[in-house]
Amino acid sequence: MKIYFDSDYTAGAHPQVLARLAETNLLHTVGYGCDSFTDRAKELIRQACGCPTAEVHLLVGGTQTNATVIDGLLARHQGVLAAESGHINVHEAGAIEATGHKVLTLPSHDGKVLATEVEEYIRNFYADDTYQHMVAPGMLYISQPTELGTVYTRAELEAISEVCHAAHIPLYIDGARMGYGLAATEGDLALADIARLADVFYIGGTKVGALFGEAVVVTNPALLRNFFPLIKQHGALLAKGRLLGVQFEALFADGLYFQIGCQAVRLAQRLKKAFVERGYTPFVNSPTNQQFFRLPNNVVDHLLTGASFEFWGPRGLTHSDVRFVTSWATTDSDIDQLVALLDSVPQNK
Amino acid sequence: MKIYFDSDYTAGAHPQVLARLAETNLLHTVGYGCDSFTDRAKELIRQACGCPTAEVHLLVGGTQTNATVIDGLLARHQGVLAAESGHINVHEAGAIEATGHKVLTLPSHDGKVLATEVEEYIRNFYADDTYQHMVAPGMLYISQPTELGTVYTRAELEAISEVCHAAHIPLYIDGARMGYGLAATEGDLALADIARLADVFYIGGTKVGALFGEAVVVTNPALLRNFFPLIKQHGALLAKGRLLGVQFEALFADGLYFQIGCQAVRLAQRLKKAFVERGYTPFVNSPTNQQFFRLPNNVVDHLLTGASFEFWGPRGLTHSDVRFVTSWATTDSDIDQLVALLDSVPQNK
Amino acid sequence: MKIYFDSDYTAGAHPQVLARLAETNLLHTVGYGCDSFTDRAKELIRQACGCPTAEVHLLVGGTQTNATVIDGLLARHQGVLAAESGHINVHEAGAIEATGHKVLTLPSHDGKVLATEVEEYIRNFYADDTYQHMVAPGMLYISQPTELGTVYTRAELEAISEVCHAAHIPLYIDGARMGYGLAATEGDLALADIARLADVFYIGGTKVGALFGEAVVVTNPALLRNFFPLIKQHGALLAKGRLLGVQFEALFADGLYFQIGCQAVRLAQRLKKAFVERGYTPFVNSPTNQQFFRLPNNVVDHLLTGASFEFWGPRGLTHSDVRFVTSWATTDSDIDQLVALLDSVPQNK
Amino acid sequence: MKIYFDSDYTAGAHPQVLARLAETNLLHTVGYGCDSFTDRAKELIRQACGCPTAEVHLLVGGTQTNATVIDGLLARHQGVLAAESGHINVHEAGAIEATGHKVLTLPSHDGKVLATEVEEYIRNFYADDTYQHMVAPGMLYISQPTELGTVYTRAELEAISEVCHAAHIPLYIDGARMGYGLAATEGDLALADIARLADVFYIGGTKVGALFGEAVVVTNPALLRNFFPLIKQHGALLAKGRLLGVQFEALFADGLYFQIGCQAVRLAQRLKKAFVERGYTPFVNSPTNQQFFRLPNNVVDHLLTGASFEFWGPRGLTHSDVRFVTSWATTDSDIDQLVALLDSVPQNK
Repeated sequence: MKIYFDSDYTAGAHPQVLARLAETNLLHTVGYGCDSFTDRAKELIRQACGCPTAEVHLLVGGTQTNATVIDGLLARHQGVLAAESGHINVHEAGAIEATGHKVLTLPSHDGKVLATEVEEYIRNFYADDTYQHMVAPGMLYISQPTELGTVYTRAELEAISEVCHAAHIPLYIDGARMGYGLAATEGDLALADIARLADVFYIGGTKVGALFGEAVVVTNPALLRNFFPLIKQHGALLAKGRLLGVQFEALFADGLYFQIGCQAVRLAQRLKKAFVERGYTPFVNSPTNQQFFRLPNNVVDHLLTGASFEFWGPRGLTHSDVRFVTSWATTDSDIDQLVALLDSVPQNK
Repeated sequence: MKIYFDSDYTAGAHPQVLARLAETNLLHTVGYGCDSFTDRAKELIRQACGCPTAEVHLLVGGTQTNATVIDGLLARHQGVLAAESGHINVHEAGAIEATGHKVLTLPSHDGKVLATEVEEYIRNFYADDTYQHMVAPGMLYISQPTELGTVYTRAELEAISEVCHAAHIPLYIDGARMGYGLAATEGDLALADIARLADVFYIGGTKVGALFGEAVVVTNPALLRNFFPLIKQHGALLAKGRLLGVQFEALFADGLYFQIGCQAVRLAQRLKKAFVERGYTPFVNSPTNQQFFRLPNNVVDHLLTGASFEFWGPRGLTHSDVRFVTSWATTDSDIDQLVALLDSVPQNK
Repeated sequence: MKIYFDSDYTAGAHPQVLARLAETNLLHTVGYGCDSFTDRAKELIRQACGCPTAEVHLLVGGTQTNATVIDGLLARHQGVLAAESGHINVHEAGAIEATGHKVLTLPSHDGKVLATEVEEYIRNFYADDTYQHMVAPGMLYISQPTELGTVYTRAELEAISEVCHAAHIPLYIDGARMGYGLAATEGDLALADIARLADVFYIGGTKVGALFGEAVVVTNPALLRNFFPLIKQHGALLAKGRLLGVQFEALFADGLYFQIGCQAVRLAQRLKKAFVERGYTPFVNSPTNQQFFRLPNNVVDHLLTGASFEFWGPRGLTHSDVRFVTSWATTDSDIDQLVALLDSVPQNK
Repeated sequence: MKIYFDSDYTAGAHPQVLARLAETNLLHTVGYGCDSFTDRAKELIRQACGCPTAEVHLLVGGTQTNATVIDGLLARHQGVLAAESGHINVHEAGAIEATGHKVLTLPSHDGKVLATEVEEYIRNFYADDTYQHMVAPGMLYISQPTELGTVYTRAELEAISEVCHAAHIPLYIDGARMGYGLAATEGDLALADIARLADVFYIGGTKVGALFGEAVVVTNPALLRNFFPLIKQHGALLAKGRLLGVQFEALFADGLYFQIGCQAVRLAQRLKKAFVERGYTPFVNSPTNQQFFRLPNNVVDHLLTGASFEFWGPRGLTHSDVRFVTSWATTDSDIDQLVALLDSVPQNK
C-alpha cells in the first residue's frame, strides 16, 4: 500500500473531528457562525491563547483568511511587509494585490524575516524624501512555522513584535501549520506567547486535523472593527458556520489540536533522523512536520515506487529537491515503510 | 420539540452525503480538486446537464462563486445587470463592487427580470451619446429560483437568453437553490434547458443537501479561460478539494439532488396550502421551497412558541412579513406540527 | 459665427488665468504641489471658505477627485450614498466601483436628495437583521449645484449635514460647478456655509474658468489622513503641480472665481427668461448656468442652424430635451443671437 | 541667479507650446478629446512613429497612464513583469496594485531588464507545478530611457520583443522621457523601431516640453479594445481634452519634440564631460538627460550655494549620490555656471 507524504491535506479530518460533525449533523442552528458551537469553539480558543479579550473569527481557508485580514488591517495607501518566500507573495495567485495592496518583500532566511531587516526597511522608507510616492509599510506578515518548516524563537518574535509596535504597524502571523509549530522540537513559542506578541494571527485547522477551517485570533480588536461584513464581502462566510464551530470545538476541547501537532512532528523527526543517518543532509533544518532533502534522482525514483511526496522545485539533472510532510494521518508504520524503501535503493544505477 | 423553517441551511448535510464523506475520510488524494472524486462529480454533473463539453468547477459558497464568476466574465469597464432584488445587489456585502464592478439594476418582478426590460436597458445605453462615460452592461445575472422563490418559465428564459446573446453578453444564473427550482410546481425548466440557455450557471449544494459547495457549470468555456487561478485568487480554492467532489458525487450519482428538491417543494406546498385554506394569502406566489406570508402579529407570536422562521423585513405594527423555508431536513411531521400550531392560535388578542 | 452652449468646458481658460500661466511659465519650482504658488492658492481658498484649519488639495479633474476622496473616506465594507442622478452613479464609468465601493442610491428630486430620505435609508439599514450582509452607508455624496443645475438651500443642507453627523458619516459635496451654485438666483448658500456643513467638498476649476483643476477642501482633516499618497496612487498628482496653484491663485486672488459665476448665471437667466416669455417651460427650474427645455423638434432644428447645444437624452419623436449651458466664455451677444434664432423659427413645418 | 537641475518638470511648457495654447484659448471645441486638434496631434504622432494603423490616446500624467494601460492589458489573474527599479514598482504609490495586479520583479541592470532573464522567468514559471497558484506574467513593462537614464539598444529591444511575443505577452514601454532617449548619445533606437517592437508605449510630454500630457501609442489595438471608458474610469479623461491635442500638435508639427530632446541631451553631456574631466566618475553611465554622480559632501555643499539638484538616496557620511537633470529650459549658460561652481570648490574642508 502506498504511503503519502505529499502534504498535510491529503486525507480528510481527524476521526474525532468527523465524529463530532456526524453527531451534530441533524441539529438545526442559526447560520453564519452565530450558533452555540461556534461560541464554544471561540471560548476554547481564547482559553488556549490565554487571552480572554481576543476576538475570534472562523474562516474556511488560508488564502481567504490572509486576504481578508490583510485587507482589513491596511489603509488604502499601505502595503504588507513579508518575506520573499511568504505564502502571500508566492502562492496565493495575487489575492493580496487583488484587494489593492502591494506585498513589500524582505529577504527570506530559511523562510523567516529578521527583526533588524524589518526595522531597517521601515527606517529607510521614511528616510527617503520621496516616500509619499511609495507604498507605505502598513503591517508585517510572517508565518509560524514558515513555508520551509522553520520556526521563530521567542526571542526572535519578541524582537519582531517590538519593531512593529515601535513603528505602529500590526504584526500578523499566518499559522496555517500552527499546530506543528507549537510542537516543534526546537521552538520555545507557546500559543500564549503568540497571542501576547501578535496583533492578529490564525490557527490553521485545514492542515491540522479539520476538514477545513482557520481560526483568526484578534488580540487587538480595535484594529479590525467591522470584520464581519468584510468576511462576507470576501466570500469567506460559511452559511453553515457551525461546521467550523463544531470542528474547532473538537480540536480544542481536550487538547486534540496539540496532540495532532506532537504526533506529526515526532514522526517527521523520525523520518529526518533516518535520512540523516543514511548520509543525506536536509537543505533546510526544519524542526516541524515538513522535511526537505536534496536527493540523488535514483533514490527519488526508488522511493516513488512505494511512496508519494512532492518535488520542491523542478527535477534537477542529477539530484532533486523533495519534501516530505507528515500529518495527523501519518503513522509509525508509514515511516517504517519509507525507511525500508530508503534501505532498499538499488546500488548501481 | 421545536420545528425549523428559518432557512435551508440550518441543518448539516443529507445523511447520504455525510456517509460518503465518512467512508472516504481516510483516503489520501491530491489537493485542490485534482482528485478522482472531483472528476467523477464533474462528469455526473455534465451528464445531468446534457452538456458533455461543459467545464465544471466546484467552489465552496454562493457569494464567493458569484464574485469569482462575475469577475472572470467581465472586462474592467463593464458591470453586471441584475434585478434590484438580486442577491449580488443586496446581500453580498458589496462583493461584486469589491472586485471593481458595478451592479446595474433592473426592476424586480417578484424577483425576476423581464427580457424586454433587459433589451430596453441595453438599447437605451447604446443610444445615449455619453455611453462611453457610463458602465457598460457586460453580462446578465439572474437567479433560478429567485430570492423570492419564483421561477422563470422556459419561454421566459429563452427570451432572456436571446436578448443576451443578441447583445453579445453572457447570461449567468445563480442556482443557489437550483434543486428546488427544478422541482417547482409551476416551472417547466429542466437542467438541460438551463445548460442550453445560460453561458454559466451554478448548481447550489449548500442549500440542497451538502455541507457546503456550489458547482459552476460553464457551457461556454471560451468565456472563462484561466478560471483556476481566479478561483485561487478569490480564496475560493479548497485545499481538500475532494470534499466537494465526494459531496457532489453523492448528490448526483443516483438522483439524490433531485429527490431532495422534490421532497422539500412538496412539503412547502403542503405548508402553503394549509395557510391559504385558513385564509392567509402569500404575498409572493412561490412554487418552490420558500413561502412568504404577511401574518397578523398574534399569529406570528403563537407560531413562534413552537416553530422558528424568519422575519422578512422588520416586524410591522399589526402584521409582519415572514418566510418559511423547507429543506432536505424537513419532514411531513414538521408540517403537521406547524399546521397544528396554526389551528391553535388563540382567538382573542 | 456659431454660438456655443454645449457645456462649460468648451473653451480654454479665462484670459486672466491663462495670463498668469504665461507670466510664470519660465520660473522653476519644485514639483507635485510643494511650490509657493500652490501654498498661496490654498491659503486664498481657506480664506474664501472662512476655514483657516481646512486642508486643501489641488487635483486635476472631477471624476478623479471624486474617486480619490471617496476611496479615502470609506472603509472597505462601506459604500457611498448618492442621488440616483448623481455624477458618480451615472457618468464616471464606474470609477467608484473600480476602487471597490458600491454607490447606494437615493431618489433624486431634480438632482437633490432629501435629508428625510437619507435618515430613513440609514435607519432602515440598521433595522434590518441582515445588515451585516449588506453594504453599510459610509458617507453621503451630493452635488452643489446638482447635475440638473438645482441648488440646495441653507436649510436643506443644514438638515442633511445634521443627519449625516448624527449617523457619524461624512458629508461630501461635489462642487464641479460650485461657482455657478454660489451665484444662483435662488440659493442662499455661501462658501462659508458649505465649509461649515460639509466634511469635505471640492471647488471646481475646470468648468469655472481654469484650464483644469479641482480644489478639495477638507474641513475635517482627521477623516482624510494620508491623502497625499492616495492622490499619487490614483494618478491624480500633477508633476508640475504649480500649474494648479497658479490657476487657483488667479481665480481666488481678486474674486475672479465669483465674478465668473455671477456673469454666467446672469446670462443663463436671460436665456431662460427669453424661452419662458415665448411659451416654453423648463423641465427643471434651474437657478444656475444650466437650462433645460423640452422643445419641439422644428425649434431644435432651427436653433441648431446657428447654435450648438446638447441633447439631454435621445431625440424624441416630436419634442426633444435639450440643455443650454453658459460659462465665463459666454457673452450677452451670444444670448442676443440665440434669442434672435428663437424668434426666427419658421412657423409652418 | 540660481540654476536648476532638479528635474525636467520644474519649469512650465516650452514657449512654442504655451503660445499655441494661448492662440487657441478662446476657441470652442467639443470635450474629452473628440476635437480636431486632438485628431491632428494623433495623426502627427502616427506619422512620427511610421505606424498609420496605431491608435493614439492622450492622457494627463505618467502614473495615470501606466495604471490605465496596464489595467487594460492584463487579465485579472495576471501581473506585470518589470525591473525592480521600474517606476511602477517603486514610485507610483501602489497604483498598479490598486487596480488588482501584482508587479513581478526582474533584476535591474542599470535600470534595464535582460531578454534572457525575461525568458527565464517565464520558462521557470510554467515549469513550476504550482504555477496556477501563482501570478502569471501577463505583460512586460520597461522604460526607455530608464529611470537611470540608460537606454536599450535596438538589438536589446529586438531580443526583448521577441521573447515577449514568443510568450504571447505584450511589451509595453514607459516613455516618460522618450524624447531624451531618442536623442541619446549612445542609443540607436528610433521612434519607428519602438513602434515596430512594442505593442503599446507612451511618448512623454510632461517632461519634454508640455505643461502635461502623455501620448499612448497602441500599435496592436486588438489588445486594448474599450480603452476610452477605462480612461474615464481611471480619472484620466481631461474634460478640455483639446489642451492635450494642442500641445502634442505643437510638439510634433515641426519636430519640436525631437529638438527639445537633442538640446537637453547635448547639455547633459557637456555637464557629464565637465565632471569627468575633473575626476568624478558617474555611478551610472547615462547617455541621456539625467546624470548621476557620487560626490564628496564638500563639493555637494558648494554646488548647492548656486545650483539646485536632487539627492539620489539619502546623504551619506562623506559622499552623496546626486542627480542633475536637463530639460528644454536648460541653457548653455546654466552649464557654464555649474562648471564655474565646480571649479571654485574650496580646497580645504
